[in-house]
Parts: sequence; structure tokens; C-alpha cells
Amino acid sequence: MIDYPAGQQPPIRSGNRFDWAKNKSQPQQVVYGSRGMSLEEQLNQANTYYNQHKIAVIHKKPTPIQVVKVDYPKRSAARITEAYYRHASTTDYNGVYLGRYIDFEAKETKNKTSFPLQNLPKHQLDHMAACHEQGGIVFIIISFKVHQEVYLLPFSKIQTFLTKHTNHSIPYNYIKEHGYICQQGYQPPIDYLKALDDYLQTQP
Amino acid sequence: MIDYPAGQQPPIRSGNRFDWAKNKSQPQQVVYGSRGMSLEEQLNQANTYYNQHKIAVIHKKPTPIQVVKVDYPKRSAARITEAYYRHASTTDYNGVYLGRYIDFEAKETKNKTSFPLQNLPKHQLDHMAACHEQGGIVFIIISFKVHQEVYLLPFSKIQTFLTKHTNHSIPYNYIKEHGYICQQGYQPPIDYLKALDDYLQTQP
Repeated sequence: MIDYPAGQQPPIRSGNRFDWAKNKSQPQQVVYGSRGMSLEEQLNQANTYYNQHKIAVIHKKPTPIQVVKVDYPKRSAARITEAYYRHASTTDYNGVYLGRYIDFEAKETKNKTSFPLQNLPKHQLDHMAACHEQGGIVFIIISFKVHQEVYLLPFSKIQTFLTKHTNHSIPYNYIKEHGYICQQGYQPPIDYLKALDDYLQTQP
Repeated sequence: MIDYPAGQQPPIRSGNRFDWAKNKSQPQQVVYGSRGMSLEEQLNQANTYYNQHKIAVIHKKPTPIQVVKVDYPKRSAARITEAYYRHASTTDYNGVYLGRYIDFEAKETKNKTSFPLQNLPKHQLDHMAACHEQGGIVFIIISFKVHQEVYLLPFSKIQTFLTKHTNHSIPYNYIKEHGYICQQGYQPPIDYLKALDDYLQTQP
């Protein structure tokens, strides 16, 4: 048995989307697990992995910033000297997988028993509903930090919940029952497309 | 016959995607054509139109900005005091239409006879190729300002051109022959999804 360094997990791939032996062009990287990484960093690494291995093309959108003042010094790059963060009107991630449109938002919570819905502002829910209506594949990725678990929850399950409940949060047990657990590992740190495959298999 | 103000064109819709008479919720706007608008403004208005009428959900991505310094003054919003524009690693626009993933870049040129390929840097072509390979619908919108014409050129036609030619620009005649002209009008200012429909009809 191979002895992996603390915090590092062996590269496990289910299916044959990627043959490790053939992958000579990949630089050897020492990655000590994903413990120190934020959810965003883990997802960015997963997206880089999916992109490099031609599994999907999914990117995080840039943070929207309202630029107020710009200096144009001679012989150097334009320098923004006053700007403000704006609220995103859409979700953070989108792209293409199996020819389909993928759209999702990712959230971390320290809560043990539920996912507070204040994490999903109305304009994001509206955007998700619009994409869902157009036939896109829409979901949220929820990381329960205390449980060290990451779930993919399809937007349709959020809609169902919202029509039946007036709660301000989705219970952990609802997510455990209706969501799809994302394997965490070496590369990708969070294999959310594997969880998406599990969901898509249940779809007609 | 209705006498439209100079520069304003009548609302012509082919197909029945939108019934003007029923559209009571739309505020009455006086828009004097699209002459003064940049290509980006025209496309943003088209996207708002498509979104409001549930035809498609397509957005321009925020401009990527590298933030270096941020002030956090008391009782007011975080203020970015040093930041720089970064090069986009993807295209500017993406979204969902007919359940499919849509990805495109939009460019204006003052050139009469060709579209200079320096307008499409390698990393954007690579991104377009990757999305195309994943089954996305990928194209560029080219506005020839002198001709007052806007074309949708499918990525596959760009690929074909690039494999056969070593030119540094795509001739206007090639775009006229292999592209799809976009109707310009009142709302949407540029009906590029109509041009996309024309293209998709030719696809198996």
C-alpha cells in the first residue's frame, strides 16, 4: 500500500474519464490535500482539472467591480484608483458539460443542522430559475464545514422545498436526502461532476 | 403607414416568440435606433430583451480586474484604491438558449474588406475550441461599422478558415458567404439569436 503524506489523498477516479498512466504532460504537483483550501479554491482547481482533461469547460465569473476613476500613466498599464464591489446579478459559475449548459452557485456554511437561505439572494434564485426554465442544468454546491461534507443540490429540489416550506433555511437532513454527495480527494479536490452524473442518471 | 422618428425602426418580429399587444408590463421607451450605441450596449440590450421575454438567458461577464489595495472605511462600502485590468481568459458572453450552451465574443471593426484576426487572441480561440469540443454553440459577432452590417460567424467556419489559410485576417467576402447576417432594429437592437436560428437550421 502506498503511504500518502498526511492530508494528501490518493488519486481515485471512478469511470475511465482519465487514465493516469497516459497523462505524461501533466506536471507532477505535490498537493497536500484540500484542508487548507477555501471552497472557491477547491472548485477552481476542479474546473482546471476538468478543462485540462477535456471533461468540461466551466469557469468562475470575475467579481463585478464598478470602476470610478482610472489613471493612465505614461508607459505603464492603466491603474484603477477608485472602484467598488458590486452585487453579482447572476451565479458565480457556468459553463458546458456534455453539450449542456451548467450554472451553479457555491456556498460554505458553519451551520451543522441547516443551510440558511439568506445565502441565496432573490436575484440569484431568479437567475437560477430562468436558466432552469431554459433547459440549463442548475444547482448549488453546499459545503458543510463541520461535517466536512459537500453536497450538490439540484435547483429543482430547492424549488420543491421552497413551495412546500416557509423556513428560512433548508435542513441538513433534506439536503442529505435530496442532494448528491461530492467525493473529495486529490485531483479534483471536489468531484462535483461525478455527483452531477449521479443526479443526471435519475433524470429521464 | 406609421411615421417613425429618424433613426428609429419599427418593431419587426419574425416568428411568434413575442406578441407586442400582450406586452403591457414593458415600460414605454423612446429609443432612437441603435446608431449611437456601441456594439456592447446593443448586445446588452438584446440580452435584456431575450431574458425578459424568456427567449434565452445570456449575460456579458464582468471585466476581470486584479485588486491590489482595498480601504475599509467605517460605515461605508469597501473602496478599492489600486487595481488593474486583466486579460480575459474566456470570451465575453455566455448563457443558455434552447437548453444548449451558448458562448461568443463580439468585435467591431472599421475595416471594409476583412476582419483582422489580431482581434481574437490565442487564449480566446483556445477557449472557443474547448467549448465547441464539449458540444457548446460557439460563434463570433462581427460588426462591420462601415458597411453597417453585423454577422454571426460560427466557430466551425473560423476553424475551417484557419486550417486552409495563413492570412492574418478573414476576408469580408468569406464572412458574407459563411456567416449569418443579424437583423438590426428597435428591440432587440441586434437580433443575433434569429441569425443563430438560421445557422442551427443548417445543422443536422
